[in-house]
Amino acid sequence: MEQGTQPVIGIVGGTGDLGSGLARRWTKAGYTVVIGSRKLEGAQEAAEAIRAQAAAGGWDSCSVEGRENSDAAQAADVVVVTVPFAHQRPTLEAIAPMVAGKTVVDVTVPLVPPKVARVQLPPEGSAGQIAQDVLGEGVHVVSAFQNVAAAHLQTDDPIACDVLVCGNSKDARQQVIDLMATIGMRGVHAGLINNAAAAEALTSVLININRQFKTHSGIRITGID
Amino acid sequence: MEQGTQPVIGIVGGTGDLGSGLARRWTKAGYTVVIGSRKLEGAQEAAEAIRAQAAAGGWDSCSVEGRENSDAAQAADVVVVTVPFAHQRPTLEAIAPMVAGKTVVDVTVPLVPPKVARVQLPPEGSAGQIAQDVLGEGVHVVSAFQNVAAAHLQTDDPIACDVLVCGNSKDARQQVIDLMATIGMRGVHAGLINNAAAAEALTSVLININRQFKTHSGIRITGID
Repeated sequence: MEQGTQPVIGIVGGTGDLGSGLARRWTKAGYTVVIGSRKLEGAQEAAEAIRAQAAAGGWDSCSVEGRENSDAAQAADVVVVTVPFAHQRPTLEAIAPMVAGKTVVDVTVPLVPPKVARVQLPPEGSAGQIAQDVLGEGVHVVSAFQNVAAAHLQTDDPIACDVLVCGNSKDARQQVIDLMATIGMRGVHAGLINNAAAAEALTSVLININRQFKTHSGIRITGID
Repeated sequence: MEQGTQPVIGIVGGTGDLGSGLARRWTKAGYTVVIGSRKLEGAQEAAEAIRAQAAAGGWDSCSVEGRENSDAAQAADVVVVTVPFAHQRPTLEAIAPMVAGKTVVDVTVPLVPPKVARVQLPPEGSAGQIAQDVLGEGVHVVSAFQNVAAAHLQTDDPIACDVLVCGNSKDARQQVIDLMATIGMRGVHAGLINNAAAAEALTSVLININRQFKTHSGIRITGID
């Protein structure tokens, strides 16, 4: 399914704010994107919305379509999972047969509503670790994007937020870092998959800060420029 | 023990890199600092080293002395605890009788050597939560400084690292934020004490980054300037 050297990107749960924002940016960057949703219609509508933006904005290219989650995972080389924490495990179990040997980017933040400003990490240590456990070592799980405000993805502006990228495969981490560079984000190797706990916990801190400052905050790593 | 409106600052475990760096900066900023250590001699030597720097540098003021940990906690209004994770609980138990009603700043990072670049948070959720549990609700525990490189504290330069400040008392958090502003650091309210998990986990990520880039990395919160 590789098109030249460009991977097809699947966004499972791609109708949400974050998923659709990533889909939009990667489509505009020239990738073939397959948006997945539990319902085909929702996925197709999300793809159509991006095509409408492409037409209105005169993008150079626009290759995006909507499918059910499993079909999106099947069609993609790199599968990004952007679902609420409560749906993470069943979603991963559903796509597991379609992602053997692929890179799966877990964007889950283990928030426990209603107290989303409180760090409440799962007993497994992190949602990233849960993803690795569910999918098994044959899948290259990479955790990323937990600290990026969805609102920023809906613009074309550079994003003032570094992305902590965790995963047990350095090559898979680098692949994801390269992909995010194409849509205006700097990724940083942040260690093995369970280090995702840091980015996941940080999201609740950023929610605290957003409430204080009425903003969409993010983080920058200092000392590496 | 308040001198005018200036609190006396005690640094329990103040002979280590981070503790001595904080002691040095607050002494130079005009605060009375009491360095604590398990052994009186070590504390006195650390204080003498700061006095020597003050004399050489012609500081406006220099009020610093060394005592045993319990005596330092007793003498101080704000007690900063900078000890390795393995020593945290016994150290807090030892100073507990001396800190009722005071603000105690816990700087503990729950690293588990030798794999310090791996996030390994304790079952309690965070070292900050452990400190609150050990000291009880009558003590204003504030977690801070986990992401600041000790090397930077030994200079007089501004520090390119924001400090996530967690604690169940907003007033105590603000007190610590005000104190760190006097030594060149921006603190940010980051939520209740267990949110310290975010800063504590982030330290292992920064250790990863330091190894890659041969640097002393830190973080900045974006979107709040």
